[in-house]
Amino acid sequence: MYRTHTCGELRLSDKDKIVTLCGWVQRSRKMGKMTFVDLRDRYGITQLVFSEDHDTAIFEKANSLGREYVIQVKGKVDERSSKNKNIPTGDIEITVEELNVLNKSEIPPFTIEDNTDGGDDLRMRYRYLDLRRNAVRKNLELRHKMTIEVRQYLDSLGFIEVETPVLIGSTPEGARDFVVPSRMNPGQFYALPQSPQTLKQLLMVSGFDRYFQIAKCFRDEDLRADRQPEFTQIDCEMSFVEQEDIINIFEGMAKHLFKKIKGIEFTEPFQRITWADAMKYYGSDKPDLRFDMKFVELMDILKGFGFKVFDDAAYIGGICAKGAASYTRKQLDQLTDFVKRPQIGAKGMVYARIEEDGTVKSSVDKFYTQETLQKMKEAFAAEPGDLILILSGDDAMKTRKQLCELRLEMGSRLGLRDKDKFVCLWVIDFPLFEWSDEEQRLMAMHHPFTSPKPEDIPLLDENPAAVRANAYDMVINGVEVGGGSIRIHDSALQDKMFKILGFTEERAQEQFGFLMNAFKFGAPPHGGLAYGLDRWVSLFAGLDSIRDCIAFPKNNSGRDVMLDAPSALEQSQLDELNLEVHLKK
Amino acid sequence: MYRTHTCGELRLSDKDKIVTLCGWVQRSRKMGKMTFVDLRDRYGITQLVFSEDHDTAIFEKANSLGREYVIQVKGKVDERSSKNKNIPTGDIEITVEELNVLNKSEIPPFTIEDNTDGGDDLRMRYRYLDLRRNAVRKNLELRHKMTIEVRQYLDSLGFIEVETPVLIGSTPEGARDFVVPSRMNPGQFYALPQSPQTLKQLLMVSGFDRYFQIAKCFRDEDLRADRQPEFTQIDCEMSFVEQEDIINIFEGMAKHLFKKIKGIEFTEPFQRITWADAMKYYGSDKPDLRFDMKFVELMDILKGFGFKVFDDAAYIGGICAKGAASYTRKQLDQLTDFVKRPQIGAKGMVYARIEEDGTVKSSVDKFYTQETLQKMKEAFAAEPGDLILILSGDDAMKTRKQLCELRLEMGSRLGLRDKDKFVCLWVIDFPLFEWSDEEQRLMAMHHPFTSPKPEDIPLLDENPAAVRANAYDMVINGVEVGGGSIRIHDSALQDKMFKILGFTEERAQEQFGFLMNAFKFGAPPHGGLAYGLDRWVSLFAGLDSIRDCIAFPKNNSGRDVMLDAPSALEQSQLDELNLEVHLKK
Repeated sequence: MYRTHTCGELRLSDKDKIVTLCGWVQRSRKMGKMTFVDLRDRYGITQLVFSEDHDTAIFEKANSLGREYVIQVKGKVDERSSKNKNIPTGDIEITVEELNVLNKSEIPPFTIEDNTDGGDDLRMRYRYLDLRRNAVRKNLELRHKMTIEVRQYLDSLGFIEVETPVLIGSTPEGARDFVVPSRMNPGQFYALPQSPQTLKQLLMVSGFDRYFQIAKCFRDEDLRADRQPEFTQIDCEMSFVEQEDIINIFEGMAKHLFKKIKGIEFTEPFQRITWADAMKYYGSDKPDLRFDMKFVELMDILKGFGFKVFDDAAYIGGICAKGAASYTRKQLDQLTDFVKRPQIGAKGMVYARIEEDGTVKSSVDKFYTQETLQKMKEAFAAEPGDLILILSGDDAMKTRKQLCELRLEMGSRLGLRDKDKFVCLWVIDFPLFEWSDEEQRLMAMHHPFTSPKPEDIPLLDENPAAVRANAYDMVINGVEVGGGSIRIHDSALQDKMFKILGFTEERAQEQFGFLMNAFKFGAPPHGGLAYGLDRWVSLFAGLDSIRDCIAFPKNNSGRDVMLDAPSALEQSQLDELNLEVHLKK
Repeated sequence: MYRTHTCGELRLSDKDKIVTLCGWVQRSRKMGKMTFVDLRDRYGITQLVFSEDHDTAIFEKANSLGREYVIQVKGKVDERSSKNKNIPTGDIEITVEELNVLNKSEIPPFTIEDNTDGGDDLRMRYRYLDLRRNAVRKNLELRHKMTIEVRQYLDSLGFIEVETPVLIGSTPEGARDFVVPSRMNPGQFYALPQSPQTLKQLLMVSGFDRYFQIAKCFRDEDLRADRQPEFTQIDCEMSFVEQEDIINIFEGMAKHLFKKIKGIEFTEPFQRITWADAMKYYGSDKPDLRFDMKFVELMDILKGFGFKVFDDAAYIGGICAKGAASYTRKQLDQLTDFVKRPQIGAKGMVYARIEEDGTVKSSVDKFYTQETLQKMKEAFAAEPGDLILILSGDDAMKTRKQLCELRLEMGSRLGLRDKDKFVCLWVIDFPLFEWSDEEQRLMAMHHPFTSPKPEDIPLLDENPAAVRANAYDMVINGVEVGGGSIRIHDSALQDKMFKILGFTEERAQEQFGFLMNAFKFGAPPHGGLAYGLDRWVSLFAGLDSIRDCIAFPKNNSGRDVMLDAPSALEQSQLDELNLEVHLKK
C-alpha cells in the first residue's frame, strides 16, 4: 500500500501518529514561510503543512506542486490552530516530513469543484476529470448503495438474480433494436435486448418463480428528453402471483430503499389511482402528487354563453392555483406564452382571479355573469386570493395533457415541487390497447403478453379499446420509476390477443414462436415489474437528468464524446463481417 | 398468491394444516383406489394423495393429469405411512380436497430428471425445460449466491460497483470486437467491450480507488474449448497499491467464497509459483497442483547414448506416475496414442517401469545401461512400482506442453484430480512480452498497459523478451480463474512500451488516445484483476463446462438454438442502418 490512511479519516484522536497519505492536490496556499496544501481523495480532504524553517527542500518541492498532481506524503498528525468545522478532518493537519510526486498533471480544463467552471460539453469530453468532482462522484456512490440494497431486499425474499443474454434475436418489428453482425454466422445479426421481457417469462416457464436482474437494456431511438441508448433496469418476475402480490412486494422494495438510503419511513400503503382518474384529474399517467391542484371539468358550467372558444370545445377544464390571484398581467402573459409553446400547443388560456370580496374577475367577463363565475368558483372550492387557469380544446385528451403541463408549471412556480419531498403512487387499470394513428390499428399499450382484467375479457370481442389491463406503474413525484403487468399464460387468450393486434398466425409464430412454444409445456400464472435504476438514482440524488448518475453517459446524438464512439470501421473489419456501408446522399 | 406454501417446506410439524400448493406434476402413480402425485417446484417435491373413496370427481381429475401440468391443490397435511427419507418433505403428504389445473402441458421432449434422456442439442433447444431440472437449476442458484457473496465481500472493503458502458468504441486492432451499427450516426459503429479494461483505468484517474463490476464481456472469436461469445467477469481495479496488496485482497475473496459457499477454510496463504517454474515443472501457466508429478529434465542423463530421438532433442523430460508400473502394454499404447493425437502432437513416448527389485525396465533398453537408467530413476526419486513416462522434441516449450497433457491424463487415470479437492495458487512474474510468429514481433502478453517489474526496466532496451511483468494469475485445479497486473501510470514508460510493441505515435494515439490523454491529468499508481465468474461457478459446481452455469448459453457456432439467433435482418432494417450484406461465395 502506498498509504496508511485515506484523506477522509484522520481525527484529533489520531494526533501525533505518523501517517502516509496519497491523493490529488486540490489547492495550495503559500503564506510566507508556510505552505498549505489540500490533499483530496475519494474519502475527503486533509490539510498538509510545509514549513520553510522545518525543511527547506521539501518546502520548495511543495511550492512547485500544481493542481491535480498526485502525491504521497508522510508526516505527523498535528492539531490545527485554526480549525475548519466544515470538514470532518478539519481539526487536524499533517506536518509533512516526506513528499513524493507520484504523477504530475497538466492544468485541468475546468476546476475540480462542486461548482465547476466547465460547460457540459467540456465536462463530457473530460468525463474522467468530471468524475473527480464530489458532486458527481457521490451520485455513483449512491447508485452503488442502491443496487446493494435492491439485491439485499430481493435476495432476502428468495429472488434469484439470473443473467440473461445480451446477444439475442432481433424481431421483424424491432425497429428500435440495436443489431450486431455475427462473424461466425455470415449475414446474420444478433440484437441487443430492449428488455429481458421474453427471457424472464421463459424463466417462469422454467420454474424460477422469483427472478430478478439488474440488467442493461438497449434502445436505438432518438434521444429526446431524458433517455440513453443504454439504460439499466431492475427487472423482476414472479410466478403464482396476482397483481396485488407484485404491488406489495415492489412497494416494499420502494419503502426499503427510502428507509435505507434516504432515511424516510413510509408507514401507509402508497395511494392508488386508476389510469382513467389520473388522466381525468391530472392529464397524465404519471401525475406529480406532491401538490393537489386537481383538474376541474367546466363543460357544464361554461358552455353555451356565446364564448365561441368554449362553446366549440370538446373539453374545458381548469386548475386552481392557491394564492396566485396576485399574479401580474406580465406573469399571466408568461403563462399564456408557456401553454402556447409548440411543445404544448394550446391556443390560449383563460384566467380568473378570486378577489378579496369573493367576486370573480376573469379574462372573459364579457361572456359570463358573476353568477356563472361563482358557480365555477364553487366547482374549484376556490377562495379569495386564488387564481383559476382554464384551457379548452377540441380533443379532450390533448387538452388534458396541455393542462397537465400548466399544472406542473404552476406547481414549480408556487414552490410545491420540493425535491426533498417524495409522493409515491400506483397508477393501475391501464387500458390494454391504445389506438395508433400512424398504424391505424390497436397496439398493445405495454406489450402483447399483458393480461386483460378477467372481468373485462368479454369486452375483447365487442369493444377491445375499453378493456383494462392488469398493468400498473409506480410514479414518484411525476416520474414513472417502473411498471409491469400480469402476463397472459393461457395460449387461447394469447392467440386472441395476437388476432386483435393484427398479427397473422405466421407472423406471431415468427416473432414469438419460441415463447409460444414454451407456453405449451406448462406455463405458470406469472407477472412482473421493471424499475428504471437510472431514474431511481436520479430521483434520490435530486438530479434533473439521469445522465449524472451514469459514469460514462452518451450525449443526445448517442455519442460518447470522451471515447469518440461510435466511429467508422476499417474496411477489413467490414469485409470480415460481409458488410458494406452505403451512406444515403 | 396462488399458494400458502412451497413444495419444499412442509414438515411433520405442519400436520393437519390446510395448505395450498402450486407446481408441476413430476410424476403420478395410480395404485388401485389411490393416486399419488409428486408435485414439484423450485423448492422441492411434495407428495399429493387422491383417494377414490374420498372424492371420486377429484380422483378422476387427478388421473387425467399429465406430466408437467401446472396445478394448484388445496388439502390437509397428513403423516405418511411409508416415509421417504431421501427428501425433506418425505414425512408428509397432502390429502387433496381441491384440484385446479392452471395449465396443461404437452409431453416434454425429454424427462425432467437429474439424469435426463435428452441429448445436448434437444436440451439446448428446449432450454426452458432443461432449466426445470434440479441439476441445472442449482447451478444458477449457486451463481446467484456467489455474486451476492462477491458483492458483500467487496462492498465491505469499500469497493464501489460502477457500470461502464456496453456501447463503446472499436479499436482498429479489435479483430475480435463485436460491432454495433448506429442508426443516429450513419456509417459508424460502436463496439461491445472485450473487457472494461480502459474504462476502469479511467475510473482510477477519476479517483475511484476501489472499483469493481460484475460485467458482461464480449468476444467474437471461434468458440473452441470452453468459451462463450458473452461471458461475465468480476472486474476490479485499485489505486495506490502494489502487486502484494491486490494479491492479498483477491486471495481474501477466494477464501471468502470457499468458506461461504463450499464450507472450506483455507488458513494458509496460497502458494505462489513463478511463470518460469510453472512452465519448467508443469509445462503450463495454469498447473493443476492437486497432484505433484513434477517434470524432471533428462537432457544431462539421457543424451549421447546413440538413441537418435533423444540425441537430436532440444528437450527431454518426464514424469513419474506412482504405482503405475503395472500398466499393461495395452494401457501404454493408449498413452502413446494419446500423446500422438494431433491436438497434442508428440512423435512418441518412452516409458520405464521400476521393477520390484529396483531395476528399471524401459522401452529403450537397447540404448541405455542399467547404470544410466538408475541415474534416471534417482532423478525422479522413483520407487519400485512406479512408471516413468518420457517425451522429447526439438522445441522445448512445445514438448513441455505435450508433457503437461500427459501429466494431466495420468493424473486423471490415477484418480488424482478429485473435483471436491481444491488447490489454489498464484502464478506470478509472467513475461511482459511474448513473441508472435504470425506477426513476427513482440506482443504484450496481457495488454500494453501492464507494468514491467521495476528491477527489469533496464532490460527493456537490451532484451525486452526477458522482462518480467507485475502480472499474476490465480489458478485453481488447473483452471485460470482470473488474473491481472499492475498498470503503467508513467507516460514516458507507456510511450516506451508502445514503441517496443511497434506502435507508431499516431497509431497509439488513435487507439488509446483517450487513455493517454487522461493519464496527463494525474494518474495514480494502480492495478487490478478480473476473475471469470463463469469459471468460478463451474469450478464450485463441479461442472466440466461453463455452459451449464449460464441460463441461456450459445453453442459452438455462437448460436442460441432456442431463440434461433443470430438471424437475417429484413432489408428495411438494413436500409435504416445504411448497410448491405455481401456474402462471400
